[in-house]
Amino acid sequence: MNEKLNIAVFPGSFDPFTIGHESIVNRALPFFDSIIIAIGVNNSKNCLFSLEKRISIIEKVFHENSKISVKSYSELTVNFCKENNSKVIIRGLRTVLDFEIEQTIAHANKNIQKEIETFFLLTLPEHSFISSTVFRDLYEYSADFSKLLPSNISINDLK
Amino acid sequence: MNEKLNIAVFPGSFDPFTIGHESIVNRALPFFDSIIIAIGVNNSKNCLFSLEKRISIIEKVFHENSKISVKSYSELTVNFCKENNSKVIIRGLRTVLDFEIEQTIAHANKNIQKEIETFFLLTLPEHSFISSTVFRDLYEYSADFSKLLPSNISINDLK
Amino acid sequence: MNEKLNIAVFPGSFDPFTIGHESIVNRALPFFDSIIIAIGVNNSKNCLFSLEKRISIIEKVFHENSKISVKSYSELTVNFCKENNSKVIIRGLRTVLDFEIEQTIAHANKNIQKEIETFFLLTLPEHSFISSTVFRDLYEYSADFSKLLPSNISINDLK
Amino acid sequence: MNEKLNIAVFPGSFDPFTIGHESIVNRALPFFDSIIIAIGVNNSKNCLFSLEKRISIIEKVFHENSKISVKSYSELTVNFCKENNSKVIIRGLRTVLDFEIEQTIAHANKNIQKEIETFFLLTLPEHSFISSTVFRDLYEYSADFSKLLPSNISINDLK
Amino acid sequence: MNEKLNIAVFPGSFDPFTIGHESIVNRALPFFDSIIIAIGVNNSKNCLFSLEKRISIIEKVFHENSKISVKSYSELTVNFCKENNSKVIIRGLRTVLDFEIEQTIAHANKNIQKEIETFFLLTLPEHSFISSTVFRDLYEYSADFSKLLPSNISINDLK
Amino acid sequence: MNEKLNIAVFPGSFDPFTIGHESIVNRALPFFDSIIIAIGVNNSKNCLFSLEKRISIIEKVFHENSKISVKSYSELTVNFCKENNSKVIIRGLRTVLDFEIEQTIAHANKNIQKEIETFFLLTLPEHSFISSTVFRDLYEYSADFSKLLPSNISINDLK
Repeated sequence: MNEKLNIAVFPGSFDPFTIGHESIVNRALPFFDSIIIAIGVNNSKNCLFSLEKRISIIEKVFHENSKISVKSYSELTVNFCKENNSKVIIRGLRTVLDFEIEQTIAHANKNIQKEIETFFLLTLPEHSFISSTVFRDLYEYSADFSKLLPSNISINDLK
Repeated sequence: MNEKLNIAVFPGSFDPFTIGHESIVNRALPFFDSIIIAIGVNNSKNCLFSLEKRISIIEKVFHENSKISVKSYSELTVNFCKENNSKVIIRGLRTVLDFEIEQTIAHANKNIQKEIETFFLLTLPEHSFISSTVFRDLYEYSADFSKLLPSNISINDLK
Repeated sequence: MNEKLNIAVFPGSFDPFTIGHESIVNRALPFFDSIIIAIGVNNSKNCLFSLEKRISIIEKVFHENSKISVKSYSELTVNFCKENNSKVIIRGLRTVLDFEIEQTIAHANKNIQKEIETFFLLTLPEHSFISSTVFRDLYEYSADFSKLLPSNISINDLK
Repeated sequence: MNEKLNIAVFPGSFDPFTIGHESIVNRALPFFDSIIIAIGVNNSKNCLFSLEKRISIIEKVFHENSKISVKSYSELTVNFCKENNSKVIIRGLRTVLDFEIEQTIAHANKNIQKEIETFFLLTLPEHSFISSTVFRDLYEYSADFSKLLPSNISINDLK
Repeated sequence: MNEKLNIAVFPGSFDPFTIGHESIVNRALPFFDSIIIAIGVNNSKNCLFSLEKRISIIEKVFHENSKISVKSYSELTVNFCKENNSKVIIRGLRTVLDFEIEQTIAHANKNIQKEIETFFLLTLPEHSFISSTVFRDLYEYSADFSKLLPSNISINDLK
Repeated sequence: MNEKLNIAVFPGSFDPFTIGHESIVNRALPFFDSIIIAIGVNNSKNCLFSLEKRISIIEKVFHENSKISVKSYSELTVNFCKENNSKVIIRGLRTVLDFEIEQTIAHANKNIQKEIETFFLLTLPEHSFISSTVFRDLYEYSADFSKLLPSNISINDLK
């Protein structure tokens, strides 16, 4: 058994946190002692939801699970990991394009902090249609996007 | 801390086990209590090396590491995992084509055994040229393929 | 023979309508009773040409073909289809990237309106170089882009 | 309304016909007067099931649907289409690799018979794990592959 | 001006040499002093045409061009280049899959012979449908494949 | 030996010029009489560094090499080539996405100026993590990006 704690970081913008993100966290959880959901704050990105709203949604999703916490950060992800004693980043992969983008980022991370690894989980087929573009389209046209949200989150929680 | 042992399975044909495979095992090892390197035996596949040779090479690579063991199997990988009390498969990803093939397999595995996950690690850039086709080409033309082998394996070990 | 009318919707921003779009419409036309060319109006997208200009160009291209009409819409494409009694969306595919983006959209559409299908046609090789980025480059540098336009449209029609 | 019959050809080796194939046929059917499921016979390909078995399975799947017929052929697909008065080929797309292979074939077909089109439908997410390789693996290891078969086909039908 | 001769090697199996290959050679030719078309002989590959036939076709295509020669080889391509005082390999790229396969090979070559470079040219759109699989299909079904051959090669030349 | 000068153009935005760009230039150089590094000036693109800064960095990298010059341009790349008596464009390829984007551009260029070719070199594995997105991330968070710069360029040169 490992003597050190196995802490994983799941970084993203989570604008908002969807059922796809929830699934990745729940599937990875049995293999780690804790998971930090880390909201990257990037000034040059236009977000639909405020940081506070995004944090409160994630906290509501996992409020019963003491192994999961939420933090925000505004630095390189690998530096955030180091400060939080984590040696592993969790990422979901949905498409070939995702794979290519993540490959560049993972190689860059490896170059900066050699001891931090990235573990990838593949999005489940039933979540294959969930992308931020699809969410924005549904949101913009006031269409029903409740299917994209974790089960204990309602559309009212996003207001 | 997890109370159950975290056992990972790293399946493949390992014909032969290369420095690329060694790297994946070493990078994944800190996050698991043990890793089983599982050689899939498939009658319809023509292998360059006998099963015995492939086992002995892997045993030599990791002979000092009690957390790593080698087994062969001739059944569905997810069934092998279950029998070995493992809930996680480790796979390396090198190319977009790898990603697509692994995605189909991972979705099929998920369909058969819902509780088993696959974690993917990306091949390091310095191993990006190592494929079974490249190995076979070098081997067929008696070119020097020692750079593709783990550091404590020599060409004589393959004879 | 089908008793209901087979109406297809060909959605896009058509900024502007090119010889590539014209080709998709003409190739799909024999299999449908009518095709609605549907210009999606999206406030967050910067277009080179006004909606009126885009409509007038398409009307000029197909003015002799009573089976083809032009409409604009500002809602989910599948909802537009339903209101227009269409059960099929036509899309062109040119690249692997197109394929991936369209796959997410098609899966999302299927999730919202199960009974609407998307049929994909592959762009002809002779139109493989026609993308909106290429058009914008030629347009910005005042280069000759007449080869990208349908045969009865001249550069003056875009002014 | 079209005056000529709209006949589509759905070609493949169907070794065997899966729930994925059945889904493509059922989704395309509303838009055509009839669909011919066309089993390509290629001497250089090793099939798991005899041509007779493959035909009988497809006939059982669609025995109540007079719009669907089964034929085998041993020539270029576009020539088979012409002889059967069909101007449209239906193909399913599951992966980026599929897309690339189909693009070459579709361009070649277009070069040989300009008037025949290929319409592509995207495999549903719930069938994303169904490939011939996955089927062969399950079959070889005597694992349960009944989930891959159309609902009225049992494992006994394949014997 | 370069003082050393700029010799390029264009390797392949050329089974047979098509209009696609001819185009790559002609497009690269202005930038090199000579091009060696190098037929790789690989015992494990089943070829449609004998080595002698493949050589004679290429010689016929370029018989008037003294800058182009044909050779066969049975060793690593980079070693063949070195023996022929060439420092550059020419390759055509048609698809994403081509790109990935060539990337692995080019990285392996670079690892073996650091001073040899590979220059890639993209297949012209009008040749996008020419693949060895398409040729074999046309050939097997005795269909007309003359469009795939260089202009001064007839079907009789292949007999 | 070629009697005309073989001049290559290496176009890009070079914001900034990285060790990846330097590598492409150095690898291509032996095959050409001279290379023009051509900075495309595009008003709609937000650059991190001024045109003057970008020029001065490239001049510093290659100040000892009389075969290499730097120019800026604001027109179609193929037109710039023509005016500079160049018949070949050099481009680096790193990812599948690069390949697809470059394929469209190369086909468009071919359509405008038939006699100009594009030669592609593949990025070396050790530079696989260098993208403009990665640079911007490191730059934005004031992280150390000196590994991305050519060896004789320091972070101070970018100020």
